[in-house]
Amino acid sequence: MDTLKLKRIAIDTYKENVVYLHRECDIYQSQGFQALNKIEVYTDTPPTQVFAVLNVVDGECIIAPGEIGLSEQVFKQFNQPEGSPIKVRHATQPKSLSYVHRKISGDRLNYAEYLEIIQDISANRYSKIEITAYLVGCAESEMDREEVLYLTQAMVNTGERIDWNGAMVADKHCIGGIPGNRTSLLIMPIVAAYGLLIPKTSSRAITSPAGSADTMEALANVELDIAQLKQIVKQHGGCLAWGGTAKLAPVDDILITVERPLSMDSPGQMVASILSKKMAAGVTHLIIDIPVGPTAKMHSYSKATKLRKLFEYVGDNLGLHLEVIMTDGKQPIGAGVGPNLEARDIMRVLENDPQASKHLQEKALQLSGRIIELDNKVRAGQGYAIARDILQSGRALEKFNAILDAQGRNPNPITFGALTYDVTAPKTGTVSAINNFVVAHIARLAGAPIDKGSGLYIHKKLGDRVVQGEPLYTIYAEFEADFKFAQNAAALDSGFEIHNSESVNTL
Amino acid sequence: MDTLKLKRIAIDTYKENVVYLHRECDIYQSQGFQALNKIEVYTDTPPTQVFAVLNVVDGECIIAPGEIGLSEQVFKQFNQPEGSPIKVRHATQPKSLSYVHRKISGDRLNYAEYLEIIQDISANRYSKIEITAYLVGCAESEMDREEVLYLTQAMVNTGERIDWNGAMVADKHCIGGIPGNRTSLLIMPIVAAYGLLIPKTSSRAITSPAGSADTMEALANVELDIAQLKQIVKQHGGCLAWGGTAKLAPVDDILITVERPLSMDSPGQMVASILSKKMAAGVTHLIIDIPVGPTAKMHSYSKATKLRKLFEYVGDNLGLHLEVIMTDGKQPIGAGVGPNLEARDIMRVLENDPQASKHLQEKALQLSGRIIELDNKVRAGQGYAIARDILQSGRALEKFNAILDAQGRNPNPITFGALTYDVTAPKTGTVSAINNFVVAHIARLAGAPIDKGSGLYIHKKLGDRVVQGEPLYTIYAEFEADFKFAQNAAALDSGFEIHNSESVNTL
Repeated sequence: MDTLKLKRIAIDTYKENVVYLHRECDIYQSQGFQALNKIEVYTDTPPTQVFAVLNVVDGECIIAPGEIGLSEQVFKQFNQPEGSPIKVRHATQPKSLSYVHRKISGDRLNYAEYLEIIQDISANRYSKIEITAYLVGCAESEMDREEVLYLTQAMVNTGERIDWNGAMVADKHCIGGIPGNRTSLLIMPIVAAYGLLIPKTSSRAITSPAGSADTMEALANVELDIAQLKQIVKQHGGCLAWGGTAKLAPVDDILITVERPLSMDSPGQMVASILSKKMAAGVTHLIIDIPVGPTAKMHSYSKATKLRKLFEYVGDNLGLHLEVIMTDGKQPIGAGVGPNLEARDIMRVLENDPQASKHLQEKALQLSGRIIELDNKVRAGQGYAIARDILQSGRALEKFNAILDAQGRNPNPITFGALTYDVTAPKTGTVSAINNFVVAHIARLAGAPIDKGSGLYIHKKLGDRVVQGEPLYTIYAEFEADFKFAQNAAALDSGFEIHNSESVNTL
Repeated sequence: MDTLKLKRIAIDTYKENVVYLHRECDIYQSQGFQALNKIEVYTDTPPTQVFAVLNVVDGECIIAPGEIGLSEQVFKQFNQPEGSPIKVRHATQPKSLSYVHRKISGDRLNYAEYLEIIQDISANRYSKIEITAYLVGCAESEMDREEVLYLTQAMVNTGERIDWNGAMVADKHCIGGIPGNRTSLLIMPIVAAYGLLIPKTSSRAITSPAGSADTMEALANVELDIAQLKQIVKQHGGCLAWGGTAKLAPVDDILITVERPLSMDSPGQMVASILSKKMAAGVTHLIIDIPVGPTAKMHSYSKATKLRKLFEYVGDNLGLHLEVIMTDGKQPIGAGVGPNLEARDIMRVLENDPQASKHLQEKALQLSGRIIELDNKVRAGQGYAIARDILQSGRALEKFNAILDAQGRNPNPITFGALTYDVTAPKTGTVSAINNFVVAHIARLAGAPIDKGSGLYIHKKLGDRVVQGEPLYTIYAEFEADFKFAQNAAALDSGFEIHNSESVNTL
């Protein structure tokens, strides 16, 4: 007997493929498998294969000898009914792992090598620790600009691509790090209402309390397939979808499962991840927003300039029209931090609500203006006024509503965590500094982005006068444990500095 | 209700701590846990805590709401009976992870930071991917010599240490990479018979087909606790134990679970791992063997010299008397490759069997001689003759037998894989090169070191004349799948080069 009976095991192992064999199973014994071995589960007809890590089971309750248990993840990928006869064998090490070892030793890799690594990761041939070795090996100073280009090309070529038949396709992307910086959800409808195509694909948050996709998801379905995405953009000019689901440069979706728990976001991977997604989406004109500030990802203009050049080098070699804009990253942009709180900010700006964050509105108009000016018909300097007219006339809101409906509007009202707590000013004075890291950290502790209603709402910004005891921001949480973590962290360091004098660093 | 009922889940997750919660469980729901979250399982009385990764279960068969399932690994560490009330909470990220991130960005870390990392890893606070990030971040050129010293000190200070009351305690260690290089099992009884203390602690194989501990385990129990180890060495002068079990620098045992599947063995970690184990074992005089050859770990004398200096720097600063010897690493040392095959080689040398490998015997005598000369009573140059007398007189065998009995002799005879295959010379000529990597790789494919009887037995060495069709080596395997893998690899590249002429590179 060399086949095993497929059994579905109702264990959720997230993005880790796990299969279960009984210790007394003939095949387990005769093949010399060990727990945590990587094995290949397959059938010859139809030809199907999945790579997974092995857990060995002793009790009869979970699985019997002669059966093989597939965790929910593997069951879904394998896509064969329970009871099917399936086979297992030792997974051979992917050859591309030797390139990862060379990368760790400081070697450069070429395009063919990056392509093989990316294809193997996409096919689930890498274990979690192998993916980590790859990511850390490539981190920081370890990749030169040619390598970032190769990696980007490899990522573009491992997945589907959208063809817009030669149309000008615009997009903007921010490298992140600034809480409440959800301009994409405003720029997209403004630019679409102007008449350009803007098929925005966003990743979910890696290290931040909310990504554009997380925020959009509070309002509408973001898991669009490519046909849906094309249809919506053809009809409405814009959309905001999650790139992972849309099969555009899909390896990102796997890498993120390691990057997120490790809070890793290295420049080379970042540039490759952003530009590959944009290329796969068929973008031709791209604005990159790099916020600079003492607690932004880029602390100095010299560091930001280095990153700008990396974007330009890779973008130019991919044939993208790419412009990098450096923006003020000294403090959060909107007032809300967390998916639902940021979604409310977006709606307020679109609705020209007097409570809307002026800061968020202003930044969105400036960036929209720059994108509109990429259109040859528009004279330099006139984009801002066009964008403002579109927003103030309500055309942006109308466009956004049409797109929400097209993507599948979330029928539930936006809700916020029921547990709330005001963090107040310890003394009277002027807000002289806001630490983006601390604000983001507290919002994450409160449960964002996983719990959509969690996060915080900022009442005071740089230069604002505050009286002792006045709320600086309000923490929202859905779960007691998270609520306490966030409160404790805020008590230790609120992230806000108050100066007695009127003077404040607004440089 | 904030407690859960402990249930033992008969799933073997190797060195990965996994716990299982039912999706409908109140605590799972109210705490906002997610699959693959790191959580802390604890009781207040007695104060016990274990960190683990969460898997979420849907079926009632494995676990019911209100219960918490502990994999075999966690159950063993947690050490509470089934049905006990236990609590869970989110594990806070260890602060030392921020040092790992700094290391990845190219920073140097200080002693206090390495200590905190090592303590957190020892306490199972790091997930597999976090351990990988640490190891890859420290790999290759990334650690300077002060950092290797700090890391070594941190590893020594995280675990128990043996005090030998001021006695001279000798040891030798080889950096590995040469198949069949099992001199430790010969040096230990020779040096002990001479009268020095030699408490050899060895790690298991990381990337090789057999480590000294794996080979010794074919003959006797190697899992000694510190009290047993001290007792045996006091009585017999020597022992060969596995450092991991003996709680000496125990973090190594955890790191190896990532290093082995990744085949990682970076210089900084290697030096720290070797020297910390020796320091913790109370060693005062240490000989380090660095084999040099085109397919050794060190390809050139300049590379080997760099490593020698790293050993010397760290050893001197730890107060060790350390000498580095560079040896010929152009080919395998003994004839057997794999735990049982190497164990037979050892016994043949000790028994002065005419079939014994002269090569293995010679190298063991030379290194033993150097250790014996560390004794001030011995004149330089006389150690070799003393060692040879001890071996030829049978005193080394007598000592080894006494030590095997003291450690707990394996009552079963040494067996070899039943599946055998001769790899033969493709033409008549002289063996001009043997590739250590290929030999080791084929032995590993055949099942070594996991299957103790697997590996290969080498019939011809460098400079030997061979006739076409004559066996170069024999492959031994226990399992059909491994046997085929090894055969296929040998067919592709046997690892042996045969020259037509008599001339051969014996430089």
